[in-house]
Amino acid sequence: MSGLRIDADRLWNSLMTLGQVGAYDDPATGLKGVNRLALTDADKAGRDTVKGWFEAAGLEVRVDRIGNVTGRRPGRRPELAPVLCGSHIDSVPTGGAFDGALGVLGALEVVRTLNAAGVETERSLEIAFFTDEEGARFGTDMLGSATAVGRLELEQAYGLTDERGLTVKGELERIGYLGEVDPRRAPPHAYVECHVEQGPILAAAGLDLGVVTGVQAISWQELTIHGKSAHAGTTPMELRKDAGLIAAKINVHLHEMVASARYGTEMRVTMGRVSPMPNRVNIVPGRVVCTVDLRNPFDDLMEKSERDLADFLDHLEKTHGVQIERRQTARTNSVTFDPKVVARVAEAMDGLGYTHREILSGAGHDAQEMASICPTAMIFVPGEYEGISHNPREFSTPAACARGVQTLMDTLLGLTADV
Amino acid sequence: MSGLRIDADRLWNSLMTLGQVGAYDDPATGLKGVNRLALTDADKAGRDTVKGWFEAAGLEVRVDRIGNVTGRRPGRRPELAPVLCGSHIDSVPTGGAFDGALGVLGALEVVRTLNAAGVETERSLEIAFFTDEEGARFGTDMLGSATAVGRLELEQAYGLTDERGLTVKGELERIGYLGEVDPRRAPPHAYVECHVEQGPILAAAGLDLGVVTGVQAISWQELTIHGKSAHAGTTPMELRKDAGLIAAKINVHLHEMVASARYGTEMRVTMGRVSPMPNRVNIVPGRVVCTVDLRNPFDDLMEKSERDLADFLDHLEKTHGVQIERRQTARTNSVTFDPKVVARVAEAMDGLGYTHREILSGAGHDAQEMASICPTAMIFVPGEYEGISHNPREFSTPAACARGVQTLMDTLLGLTADV
Repeated sequence: MSGLRIDADRLWNSLMTLGQVGAYDDPATGLKGVNRLALTDADKAGRDTVKGWFEAAGLEVRVDRIGNVTGRRPGRRPELAPVLCGSHIDSVPTGGAFDGALGVLGALEVVRTLNAAGVETERSLEIAFFTDEEGARFGTDMLGSATAVGRLELEQAYGLTDERGLTVKGELERIGYLGEVDPRRAPPHAYVECHVEQGPILAAAGLDLGVVTGVQAISWQELTIHGKSAHAGTTPMELRKDAGLIAAKINVHLHEMVASARYGTEMRVTMGRVSPMPNRVNIVPGRVVCTVDLRNPFDDLMEKSERDLADFLDHLEKTHGVQIERRQTARTNSVTFDPKVVARVAEAMDGLGYTHREILSGAGHDAQEMASICPTAMIFVPGEYEGISHNPREFSTPAACARGVQTLMDTLLGLTADV
Repeated sequence: MSGLRIDADRLWNSLMTLGQVGAYDDPATGLKGVNRLALTDADKAGRDTVKGWFEAAGLEVRVDRIGNVTGRRPGRRPELAPVLCGSHIDSVPTGGAFDGALGVLGALEVVRTLNAAGVETERSLEIAFFTDEEGARFGTDMLGSATAVGRLELEQAYGLTDERGLTVKGELERIGYLGEVDPRRAPPHAYVECHVEQGPILAAAGLDLGVVTGVQAISWQELTIHGKSAHAGTTPMELRKDAGLIAAKINVHLHEMVASARYGTEMRVTMGRVSPMPNRVNIVPGRVVCTVDLRNPFDDLMEKSERDLADFLDHLEKTHGVQIERRQTARTNSVTFDPKVVARVAEAMDGLGYTHREILSGAGHDAQEMASICPTAMIFVPGEYEGISHNPREFSTPAACARGVQTLMDTLLGLTADV
């Protein structure tokens, strides 16, 4: 361990300050929530704030063509591949102040600590925030990092639209973050990301931190169910093609699939969006757009669940005379992080005397994209209230955040010293 | 029979002309639809058109405080209670050109025919269109006629709001239809309404017209399901309170209730509206607002279905740890029309040589409100395509419309002659 200590108060102040950007009063919880949906005015305000902090910390800041923002702190050996860390600052519409912000502001705290101590690293250190990691607006998550590693073509990313038909490219331009740097970046020496767990496991185990060994497989589908709009009072039940009923049956069936345990014990399903048309009390819905979010740590079980769901949809089409359009909006296999970098994260925690365990990520992260081009690992910080996230109740204590970022710093110090 | 003949072409032209007001291109059907949602600019345009026609026909037009528009054609005995007929011209957002418009323009056609023939009636004849019969915007149907008969208090009606929080009173004022006449009207001598069947029964039986003997019971509830918003990837299934899943289970259960036949063979259920929050692919819905529309020709079976649904909601609250707020937004018992007026409608059809049968209305109509203050009956005109309604495909042939309105005229001539 380095002996260098991050400033926990400064880190906390950064988190709380950014948490004010896009803040709103949440009726469901009575708390302040954060809404910095990607490429909105609130996201622009958050970007301007953090970019300003990057520049104030003396970083060489660049914006690429998908809006990813990277700050570079040159090392003694600028010709060597830099060590990269970061995350994202966009949020879901009803989010909290931590999520990706901790990874970005934690990386900034590391830079500020190195600056204050006048420490020069061998390899350059780069910190970044990636565009639209949440996918909550344009339907495809890890948008910026997927483009950075080449899994997503820039033109494809540009063409994605939100519910109002606005494009990624148009919105990037509108908020002034359509940069000129090629988003395809040279592989870093390594990538490390600190993030809140967004789950209950670490808190339940009473541990300080988690060493993330990988990410579960994720599958998103958008279903458009074509039935027949009709009068709710006069149309006999047997003559109906109720698209809303079909969506309901799919949702119930997905939960029966989980209960069956045929797809392992860790399968997760969510029908997060249901939009019937015309969505009126006395009209049988003629059309419904709904989404299916499947997660599974095991690729083979994920594929089995996708096949069985497709069969069930075929069955519904036959038995109910409806058509079900299917569009895959996101699909990633499970990811296994680099054992060597994972081990160095664990060593850093040991050196700092933090208790920890290995853990698989239930959520998608930019780290899973970076893992396709360089050795990667993640640090998980436990959250309160069963680690609830994507919710205004999302909260990690100042001490927990500081432990995660201190670990990030010691890990980065080690990695930047590799020559 | 009178020998007086309505002008079928003039009637059809009126229907087609009004059908252009609020017309839109419907993506689901590829047809022109009609959207004259109550108290919108399109509804105002429709009202202005029909009110202008009333005035051009020499009627004394009055607008009451709930926006009901009535045209009076004085008879020889103006001191006697008038005979009233009419319907509504508002539509659902994805409606057709017939629905209530046929009853209003049919009544106008009767007046025009009497004018052309210089016929003076004993009793005065009044024709009306009532405000927001559909209930598709403010959640309460038969708004204008229910206020006219005193079932709904004016202040209560004024306070109803749409999804954007706009009030009935504010919108009446905005479109210039907040009249000054007391909506509570003296009981007419009788009320007769011509309307499209909105169902498949008459067409299937190959009959010209239907003599409506009553209206089935209708129950509307708005349910607000309070669960817990959470991250779709990291929240273990056993820790979730998925409000969307609860709504899905309610919808599926309602259809199982129908299939059970425990509530008779004519129970109808519709969950027309489902609005999850925040309605995003990767967030477990924390709250859902949905609607339940129940119909049954038998009051006791309706009450049984309402009780059993309430028990099921209680059960869901206990087993899933959610709260389900319940608000009754509409509730009417089944209505039996006046046997004497019903008989006179049937006699008029016989006199004209039209085939007919008695039929119970599956939909709510202004006639069921008028039935509480005066002898009432309805004439049903069959529709094409299984009588589909509340849909751009809604269509009744010119000949069918003419038969309905000719019956209306002969019935009205008889009733206005009662002294």
